[in-house]
Amino acid sequence: MKNAYAVIFSSERNDNDLSGYEETAYHMVELAKTQKGFLDIESVRDNNGIGITISYWETLEDIQNWKKNEEHLVAQQRGKSDWYKSFKVKICKIEREYEF
Amino acid sequence: MKNAYAVIFSSERNDNDLSGYEETAYHMVELAKTQKGFLDIESVRDNNGIGITISYWETLEDIQNWKKNEEHLVAQQRGKSDWYKSFKVKICKIEREYEF
Repeated sequence: MKNAYAVIFSSERNDNDLSGYEETAYHMVELAKTQKGFLDIESVRDNNGIGITISYWETLEDIQNWKKNEEHLVAQQRGKSDWYKSFKVKICKIEREYEF
Repeated sequence: MKNAYAVIFSSERNDNDLSGYEETAYHMVELAKTQKGFLDIESVRDNNGIGITISYWETLEDIQNWKKNEEHLVAQQRGKSDWYKSFKVKICKIEREYEF
């Protein structure tokens, strides 16, 4: 995945009022997978509501297009208004990788 | 943190034989914080033993130095022999970021 891009989404979820969250989160992953340039996604959330989701994309343009996707825009808005206390997004270029 | 570097460590922990894991994981975070170029760390692990830890560093050289730290080398070896089924490491350059 060298020279591909990673979007690191770190979030703290609200304690309550999570109606619609699980369905939307699931649907967004499925929708992301169908987008041009999508490579992979990994997502972990712990019992304290702290989560990290990383999606991987071929180009910065693919990331911009996904950010502007209409259904994704609606989900982003609900994330801000209802589901997340806070989040951070970082867009990174992959320089090297290895695995075990 | 633009132009800094992120080390994305995605791992699946073994189901058993985790003796020493928690102490070492805690100590490695504390030790990393004292290294030259260290900026930040965030870490999440879910109930299935899937985890993502991301550490942030000023330069690639800082990351190399941390990888070669003697105590860290011992921990890496135990990680491979005892604690992890598998892991992936990606080193990325941060191109942009925003938060909510």
